Amino acid sequence: MTKEIDVDLGERSYSIRLGENLIGQPGLLDEYLSGTQALIVTNDAVKSLYLDALISSLPKSMKIDTVTLPDGEAYKTLETYALVIDKLVEARHNRTTTVIALGGGVVGDVAGFAAATYQRGVAFVQVPTTLLALVDSAVGGKTAVNHVRGKNLIGAFYQPRRVIADVATLRTLPERELRAGLAEVIKYGVIYDSQFFDWIDEQLERLVTIETDAMIQAVRRSCEIKAAVVQGDERELGKRAILNYGHTFGHALEAVTGYQQLLHGEAVAIGMVMAADLSMRLGWLSAAEAARIRELIKRAGLPVSPPSLSSATLLEAMNMDKKVVDGQIRLVLAKGIGEVIVTDRAPIGAIRETLNAKDTLCLA
Amino acid sequence: MTKEIDVDLGERSYSIRLGENLIGQPGLLDEYLSGTQALIVTNDAVKSLYLDALISSLPKSMKIDTVTLPDGEAYKTLETYALVIDKLVEARHNRTTTVIALGGGVVGDVAGFAAATYQRGVAFVQVPTTLLALVDSAVGGKTAVNHVRGKNLIGAFYQPRRVIADVATLRTLPERELRAGLAEVIKYGVIYDSQFFDWIDEQLERLVTIETDAMIQAVRRSCEIKAAVVQGDERELGKRAILNYGHTFGHALEAVTGYQQLLHGEAVAIGMVMAADLSMRLGWLSAAEAARIRELIKRAGLPVSPPSLSSATLLEAMNMDKKVVDGQIRLVLAKGIGEVIVTDRAPIGAIRETLNAKDTLCLA
Repeated sequence: MTKEIDVDLGERSYSIRLGENLIGQPGLLDEYLSGTQALIVTNDAVKSLYLDALISSLPKSMKIDTVTLPDGEAYKTLETYALVIDKLVEARHNRTTTVIALGGGVVGDVAGFAAATYQRGVAFVQVPTTLLALVDSAVGGKTAVNHVRGKNLIGAFYQPRRVIADVATLRTLPERELRAGLAEVIKYGVIYDSQFFDWIDEQLERLVTIETDAMIQAVRRSCEIKAAVVQGDERELGKRAILNYGHTFGHALEAVTGYQQLLHGEAVAIGMVMAADLSMRLGWLSAAEAARIRELIKRAGLPVSPPSLSSATLLEAMNMDKKVVDGQIRLVLAKGIGEVIVTDRAPIGAIRETLNAKDTLCLA
Repeated sequence: MTKEIDVDLGERSYSIRLGENLIGQPGLLDEYLSGTQALIVTNDAVKSLYLDALISSLPKSMKIDTVTLPDGEAYKTLETYALVIDKLVEARHNRTTTVIALGGGVVGDVAGFAAATYQRGVAFVQVPTTLLALVDSAVGGKTAVNHVRGKNLIGAFYQPRRVIADVATLRTLPERELRAGLAEVIKYGVIYDSQFFDWIDEQLERLVTIETDAMIQAVRRSCEIKAAVVQGDERELGKRAILNYGHTFGHALEAVTGYQQLLHGEAVAIGMVMAADLSMRLGWLSAAEAARIRELIKRAGLPVSPPSLSSATLLEAMNMDKKVVDGQIRLVLAKGIGEVIVTDRAPIGAIRETLNAKDTLCLA
């Protein structure tokens, strides 16, 4: 069942190894490690579950250090990043070291930014352990930490040498986080592939119960779509922006709730419903399609309306998002299921209507 | 007299505009600026001398923000870097902004790292105002901040779009800093071009008094040599390391003196004499050549022996340098004037002799 998914980025190309029970296999990363040292970056919960198994996959001759980060988006900061850098310095890692991220999106983003900037860049490997990280953050080379004023404002484009996508890790994931990851899986259907959207619609119950074949299929197609989009636009000058469907609204929701109340995937879920609602108001998405998007997100056990917040507060946060260019809010909106466009022409009046719609989003 | 020096790095190519009284010329950067915003990063001393002139060179329609950093190598830290990031965030700079470094090496390195990592990378322009920055730090795309345990341990390779090398700025530079910059000019002769070394030897007094023609010639040849070396090895996997002649010793001297006592160029000056001394001990450099290197550095008004420090302390600091790979200290040593080699085979006994030589370095 093991698959290789290539991410073709010229001299920065790599492939994703996708399968079940990969962590713990001997020699798992041998051909991707150079030098005599590696640093595993993880968090408390993941450490107790997978650290020993991962170390057993690494060459016995290597000196392996570990740094354990506090868990949660609220800790995706320059201060947490400095913990990783401090560990690399204190344990005297040199330019041939490898930073291995073992965990979810926060661990991967912080470890990746540290790998990108320690001694101006050392080797990096991703071992994601959440669905969100498997299908999104571990693929595509975006690394970042948050600023108090906005998400992912500090970071680098930096590709891993290898991604180990082990779906067995999902069986130890809290159900809420599994569902949050499904938001990004659904996103790939909306932005790129209506057949995949239909397939998710049919297979949703098998995904929620983590049936191996279905989950591998969902991760495979998600990674393929992400790779296809990133290959065309590694540094997000154009097309890559479609991956941000639901994210401008979602990031604003996360920012105004202090990155505490909503998981990233939950914020994106609400953001996707808001983007569908706005697309419908602008006449680009039929009421039936908008309702279908909302319904699938809801069936996945995800929220479909924002917490009680003023539209002015949300609009202010949206204006701080990276996707704002010269004062225009750039949004990814749906022209149907399977196709989106990036626009900075959405009328502010329509955006406000969506921000005020609350429980009636996508309900024409 | 204005010259263009090309730095050919594929899609990251740019050119250096070299001349006198460039800052203040209308339209100086017009073709390198996109978007409607720019952030000038500078320090107090440079701000009062050149900020208004630089702003007068920029399009009137642009929104220009300024951030003033504390001056000195001791402030080349993640905390100072965060000041630049905070300013970019607070003034709502978006991905189309340009970060302009106006100052010496510290300003350029910190501003460059901020440009490399704000929103995962925005446009960057260097306007160096010290000789060290003109001939070294502003060319080649190394950006970094220091860690308490070592110099430049955190950073990125990130090329500017444009470098404005205005030798008029050297007339306002403290003489000590001018002489420190001459250390790097002399370095280019030692590592790459014996004729240039001879020329510096002849023209030294004209350089110390900043005669325009001589200084432009010195900066031009220094930038040409740096560009030639960097073009072959942008990310320092091999040949680029020759630029570190004198730097492994020099960085150790800076680190153990807390980045306060010695200017970077002064530490490199001592480091070059130490490297010449070690090269002589290993039989690679004649006593006459070693003495010539020492003498030129001394004539430039630079120190030629280290402050009183134990060899154990210095060796410990050298082991923390980035150039240490798997426990071996990599050194750049001279095989004559105009040619150096990179080696990790220098016997520790000989290194210790050089560290203990103090006032007798290069005196066979």
